[in-house]
Amino acid sequence: MEIDILTLFPNMFTGVLNESILKKAREKGAVNVNVIDFRRYANNKHQSVDDYPYGGGAGMVLKPEPIYSAIDDLLDGGHHQSRIILLTPQGERFTQKTAERLAKEDHLIFICGHYEGFDERIRTLVTDEISIGDFVLTGGELGAMVITDSVIRLLPGVLGNDDSSVYDSFSSGLLEHPHYTRPREFRGMKVPEVLLSGDHKKIAEWRNKEALKRTYQRRPDLLENYPLTKQEKYWLEEIKKEKK
Amino acid sequence: MEIDILTLFPNMFTGVLNESILKKAREKGAVNVNVIDFRRYANNKHQSVDDYPYGGGAGMVLKPEPIYSAIDDLLDGGHHQSRIILLTPQGERFTQKTAERLAKEDHLIFICGHYEGFDERIRTLVTDEISIGDFVLTGGELGAMVITDSVIRLLPGVLGNDDSSVYDSFSSGLLEHPHYTRPREFRGMKVPEVLLSGDHKKIAEWRNKEALKRTYQRRPDLLENYPLTKQEKYWLEEIKKEKK
Repeated sequence: MEIDILTLFPNMFTGVLNESILKKAREKGAVNVNVIDFRRYANNKHQSVDDYPYGGGAGMVLKPEPIYSAIDDLLDGGHHQSRIILLTPQGERFTQKTAERLAKEDHLIFICGHYEGFDERIRTLVTDEISIGDFVLTGGELGAMVITDSVIRLLPGVLGNDDSSVYDSFSSGLLEHPHYTRPREFRGMKVPEVLLSGDHKKIAEWRNKEALKRTYQRRPDLLENYPLTKQEKYWLEEIKKEKK
Repeated sequence: MEIDILTLFPNMFTGVLNESILKKAREKGAVNVNVIDFRRYANNKHQSVDDYPYGGGAGMVLKPEPIYSAIDDLLDGGHHQSRIILLTPQGERFTQKTAERLAKEDHLIFICGHYEGFDERIRTLVTDEISIGDFVLTGGELGAMVITDSVIRLLPGVLGNDDSSVYDSFSSGLLEHPHYTRPREFRGMKVPEVLLSGDHKKIAEWRNKEALKRTYQRRPDLLENYPLTKQEKYWLEEIKKEKK
């Protein structure tokens, strides 16, 4: 996969690109990430990428030309089915489903605004407008990092077996069950007996029920689309009674 | 504000801390951010911070001791009302309201897991469990960056007048209206006449109506809690008719 990130703050990406999963994925050749300062596409001597808003008001607005020129340049490289993603609070909410969809693409281009709004005409250039949530960030950079991280870990060969994504929250449809490791007792808190029992069937049941309980308590909305097994239906009734 | 971030990947934060709003806020003395590798609290010769899960299964689990020791150490510094925030997909969904609440605190501690799950007993230590959204990331680091960015820009004196947060999406309750800057015509696309009119009242009305229209089209859920003025009610009826 090829990822191009258009930003005015390329250095923001240094730490994230050179650590952890992104570093691994790049070393394995699963992904190639280019961070591009689109200021170099500003066709004026001051290299300005923003200007005052028509109609007045506070704040500067990103001009259309530098972004259009940068994209022209990137698509000229022979890419055909590129997704051009604008990070904006007005976009479609990013979810694991979107990550799975994007993980099937060959080429992602992220456009990160910063501080300012952007000229409305930039929207006509993009294929996707995405928001990572209902909160305001200084720019699109963190959104691009979040999406990149979540997409890259889904690419074949990136996660080792030990880091398998199969049991992730949201992948199974339920939140994850509780985890415990040594010591058996820590500051008075003990590991549940069942996990020490060696009885694999009982352990699997306990985990399934705890995952169900946690989902019911914290995110009952996830259960609306979750196909409960007969056993899970029974447990859910039990969990509801426990609560009373 | 004092922010401590517990992570196994401190270098991930380098770029974000040294650019943009976070750099500004640190230079202005509005915030002090410490990134702490909690591996140095591992009390064993291999400095291991994780171990196999009781009950078996794939993946490693973060041990409770290093995190507890790190927090003990941080609270020993005399902080009293610290928020201890665990980044987890199972947490409460992060929104602008949470950002506003956290911006009033003196001391935030973020605990970032990475790859693995974490020992359940770590939960009893924290004051807040937060998720930035329904997607899976490699670790809590990006979540900590997102929350830090959104909180810091709300601190007094951090944003200049030009970057005012008053007109942000979500702050007014509506999505933002479209912005335009020069040139007047770009690749055949023109700036709406009203913005060139110099008529401030008309411009304000146009923007208000466009913000309403955009919110209705993209995020009708936001209108449920939005107190419409009489004029906005009228426009909304118009917008609904236009759509038909």
